[in-house]
Amino acid sequence: VSKSELELIAWLKRRQSPAPSHVELSIGDDMASVRLGAARVLITSDLLLDGVHFVVGEHTPEQIGRKAMACSVSDCAAMAVRPVAATASVALPDKVDMAFAQRLVEGMNAVADAYDCPLVGGDTTSWPSGLVVDVAMLGEPWPGCEPVRRDGAKPGDAIYVTGPLGGSRLGHHIDFSPRVAEAHRLVTELRERLHAMLDISDGLSLDLWRICEASGCGAELDEALLDDVVSEAARALSARDGRSVLDHVLNDGEDFELLFAVDPEEPAPPIGVRVGTMVTSGLTLTGRDGTSRPIEAKGFQHFT
Amino acid sequence: VSKSELELIAWLKRRQSPAPSHVELSIGDDMASVRLGAARVLITSDLLLDGVHFVVGEHTPEQIGRKAMACSVSDCAAMAVRPVAATASVALPDKVDMAFAQRLVEGMNAVADAYDCPLVGGDTTSWPSGLVVDVAMLGEPWPGCEPVRRDGAKPGDAIYVTGPLGGSRLGHHIDFSPRVAEAHRLVTELRERLHAMLDISDGLSLDLWRICEASGCGAELDEALLDDVVSEAARALSARDGRSVLDHVLNDGEDFELLFAVDPEEPAPPIGVRVGTMVTSGLTLTGRDGTSRPIEAKGFQHFT
Repeated sequence: VSKSELELIAWLKRRQSPAPSHVELSIGDDMASVRLGAARVLITSDLLLDGVHFVVGEHTPEQIGRKAMACSVSDCAAMAVRPVAATASVALPDKVDMAFAQRLVEGMNAVADAYDCPLVGGDTTSWPSGLVVDVAMLGEPWPGCEPVRRDGAKPGDAIYVTGPLGGSRLGHHIDFSPRVAEAHRLVTELRERLHAMLDISDGLSLDLWRICEASGCGAELDEALLDDVVSEAARALSARDGRSVLDHVLNDGEDFELLFAVDPEEPAPPIGVRVGTMVTSGLTLTGRDGTSRPIEAKGFQHFT
Repeated sequence: VSKSELELIAWLKRRQSPAPSHVELSIGDDMASVRLGAARVLITSDLLLDGVHFVVGEHTPEQIGRKAMACSVSDCAAMAVRPVAATASVALPDKVDMAFAQRLVEGMNAVADAYDCPLVGGDTTSWPSGLVVDVAMLGEPWPGCEPVRRDGAKPGDAIYVTGPLGGSRLGHHIDFSPRVAEAHRLVTELRERLHAMLDISDGLSLDLWRICEASGCGAELDEALLDDVVSEAARALSARDGRSVLDHVLNDGEDFELLFAVDPEEPAPPIGVRVGTMVTSGLTLTGRDGTSRPIEAKGFQHFT
């Protein structure tokens, strides 16, 4: 994300006409939610571009297809809903052949099969430019469970993540497992104690800021707790590029782990590692010496 | 559409795993249909590319936004369902500014407002290549009406279109009105007599072939009847490029009129112009002298 992309989204939210009554949740969360009679359907779309989210030639068509589908499945995890079906729109570079397109689809189908979320339609066109893959996906609430939004966090909530962070560009970004089962377990066991959730796509600092902004509160991360969520890749990348491990944990993107705010009472969530606490305002990091300093919510420039 | 795109779609249909029971209609129609409890939701996605479906600089951002949304609304018309909500994924060229993006969204919102189909989400990324706009749209059946597929035509059915055809590239392709109200009226008045329908996006010959292929029958167009659906633009383009008016009517794309096959009994459809008859096999044109000749289902290369 660039500054202008964040500005555009802010403008979109302001610009919106009053939502019709069938729209429960519109622009600004991981998925939108629409009522259809007694049913409720959630929808997301994710656009992946050559040179931004993957590199043709460096990544195989199967990997690109898997990532395209997995990004949208991860949005379903972020809302704690069940993936139902997907469509894929693909702009194929003139220079690729039929086998490339088929391998791309095989990659999509592998993830579709794993999450019981079939590819049911789409659109394909050739053009003289780079590969573009957009996946739109439908989800529905798990029986008896409400979708989990990002605007329900409260001061005092404990902040958790479901796995290691940072260094995703070394490989995790193209080969990750969306946390659908984890989200289902969290919402089933925690119910309304699970106040806010999203999947970390643009980095912990920016995505946590998004929960803060939507919920009207702040957050305090704990440097000592973050030690427990440092990925091997974050260490490897730090050794290579000289940026601190902490910088990678806070600001790398495409981890696709869940970040959630939960009522601090017992029992603790069945899964996840605690990394901080929601507060009334600000976005800060408490160091090992107990001093607190502000964190900048850095926009992730994707992996290239 | 190129030959390879048609081949890819044929391969996709063959490749599909058996659809889960909640998928009513998968790849191969204008929209897919999925059951969610007692409700039923339809979904489509349409990918528009700079230099293929529009030209940045030649068309305004508002026009491009309107076309992107209107193409998906037209898919809802093709299925005779009500548009419900949409998401838009946009790849913005690095060189365009915030105002361009906002004008693009204003174009989308104009169509969204006109069809009561709000933009509820999406994705946006900048990249150093051409503008890409993908719109995914949800629809739901009109109360008491079944969605109209393309696979129900029968020999003997009368073939109709809702408006003039050909020469769309002269301007109609970027500024058309999806036939949602017309489709609603047709399905309401004709009910199960409306056997098959789609919107003409790739040209009458190819789209009629699609109905034939899906329905397992053939079609016979009548040259004298086609006189009544020649657009002004088809005549103008013919005068300019030397291709016959008939060629433009049969093979130009992006008319976005409805093409439908209806039980030939009385009463006739409340709207539309008859252009031919479904038969058991083949795709032919009956000339003014009564002789019949085969038509080639030519793939429309879009407007550039």
